[in-house]
Amino acid sequence: MLDLWYSEYHTDDVKFSIKTTRHLYSEQTPFQKIDFFESETYGTFFTIDGLVMVTQRDEFAYHDMICHVPMAVNPDIKRVLIIGGGDGGTAREVCRYKGVTHIDLVDIDERVVRLCQKYLPQTACALDRDERISMHFMDGFKFVKEAPDGAYDLILVDSTDPIGPGEGLFTMEFYENCYRALSDCGILINQHESPFYDNYNHEMLRAHAKIKRTFPIAKVYQFHMPTYPSGLWLFGFASKKLDPIADFKRERWEALGLKTKYYNTDLHCAAFALPTYVKEKLDNVR
Amino acid sequence: MLDLWYSEYHTDDVKFSIKTTRHLYSEQTPFQKIDFFESETYGTFFTIDGLVMVTQRDEFAYHDMICHVPMAVNPDIKRVLIIGGGDGGTAREVCRYKGVTHIDLVDIDERVVRLCQKYLPQTACALDRDERISMHFMDGFKFVKEAPDGAYDLILVDSTDPIGPGEGLFTMEFYENCYRALSDCGILINQHESPFYDNYNHEMLRAHAKIKRTFPIAKVYQFHMPTYPSGLWLFGFASKKLDPIADFKRERWEALGLKTKYYNTDLHCAAFALPTYVKEKLDNVR
Repeated sequence: MLDLWYSEYHTDDVKFSIKTTRHLYSEQTPFQKIDFFESETYGTFFTIDGLVMVTQRDEFAYHDMICHVPMAVNPDIKRVLIIGGGDGGTAREVCRYKGVTHIDLVDIDERVVRLCQKYLPQTACALDRDERISMHFMDGFKFVKEAPDGAYDLILVDSTDPIGPGEGLFTMEFYENCYRALSDCGILINQHESPFYDNYNHEMLRAHAKIKRTFPIAKVYQFHMPTYPSGLWLFGFASKKLDPIADFKRERWEALGLKTKYYNTDLHCAAFALPTYVKEKLDNVR
Repeated sequence: MLDLWYSEYHTDDVKFSIKTTRHLYSEQTPFQKIDFFESETYGTFFTIDGLVMVTQRDEFAYHDMICHVPMAVNPDIKRVLIIGGGDGGTAREVCRYKGVTHIDLVDIDERVVRLCQKYLPQTACALDRDERISMHFMDGFKFVKEAPDGAYDLILVDSTDPIGPGEGLFTMEFYENCYRALSDCGILINQHESPFYDNYNHEMLRAHAKIKRTFPIAKVYQFHMPTYPSGLWLFGFASKKLDPIADFKRERWEALGLKTKYYNTDLHCAAFALPTYVKEKLDNVR
């Protein structure tokens, strides 16, 4: 019996391991190392530079929470920009909204998209099926810099961690360009790392400080992601004028009749209530 | 350099590991195997039969959420029964309420208490310091069976998983005796396992079904616990008449001025909003 374990170090002395039944594929692209594995409990999953990105078993939590929270605050969102998200899961959820007219998906690495189309159709399914999606294989930082003013109602930063190719997506200049590229009702959601382990925590606070300086409204919400370090993960909700709770359109969202496995309208508000230690860290950021 | 890893299998093919700097102590008692370890990230932690019970680094989440949620629903609670909880963390939090007049702590294994007093004073500190605590080293199932009617305002079931000595604490007869031993405003909080992995999930649903049959009010709330399987953990809130949200005494609790690291009054309500997949599992229980 093959005894092959994938392990991710969450800190130098804490690791999380999944027994794999098959190492499906491995490729070093110009940007990163991509690996696909099969496992019993988590199904197919892929890693970038050794870190879990998406597993079949728990991706619903991440993709529900990055997409449905902003869409329920402004169900009139039409033009969406996704930075990163080459696995297609975020685009898949956005495509469920009929009012969305156009989605630009910008991933620096075309290989992520092509490999997910081959090995992870569960997340990549919308990418070659929905004509509203335009794919751009380039640096997200550069794409936003060149985007026209007010071009988008929603920007979703579905990035890797702020090391390697994702680094520019955590800079002040990037957030300022996002602000400029957003319409008056614009919302920016960004992958906000985890508050628990110090190594992740540090990046989270740096990102939050910059967003707070750029956007009048800058909140943080939590969700539970078993395969990410500590299991507690955050998204940032930043906007020009819409508040995630005060402007939440509960009835309108419920009337859409979308079936979701993680998100629901009670959880929408609840996700913004954070444990005291997380709140205190965020409040102390300047 | 010593390279010694503690690993816990969360499923047959998923494991969580902590590098230990020292194996402090190991003992097989008549009931279970108890081990204490030291580590960088999680500090001192102990395991029972190989499963993590308490770590210095994340115990605050568990002990805040088992105690402050019911205390904020009924700040007049006077008599408290803790079943299990030999590490003392739950008792420590209950002792912070001046209105509490008596605490019975019932753990089947005196060695858990004595060893935590030696190796984990952070959780065990209240046990030999607070005169309101009476310790009873016996089966919690038997203790509740023999308890007088209406003897307690709050019962906290801070048990191990429903295998081995903790098994009786997940039976119908146990919950019925808890109901009988509670006063009219009585609340029962029980360790409710995790909804994510199927092996834990099954026990969670069995326990919930029994509590729902016994108590008019039976809700479930979630919190985040990095060292427990999947990181998402649940407590059950059952009571004779108090609803955890409708009867929540926000201002009275805030007026107490207790400093907490996890619990806060916004999170109190938010914790009862569960992800859709968890809600559906619980709703389908009969």
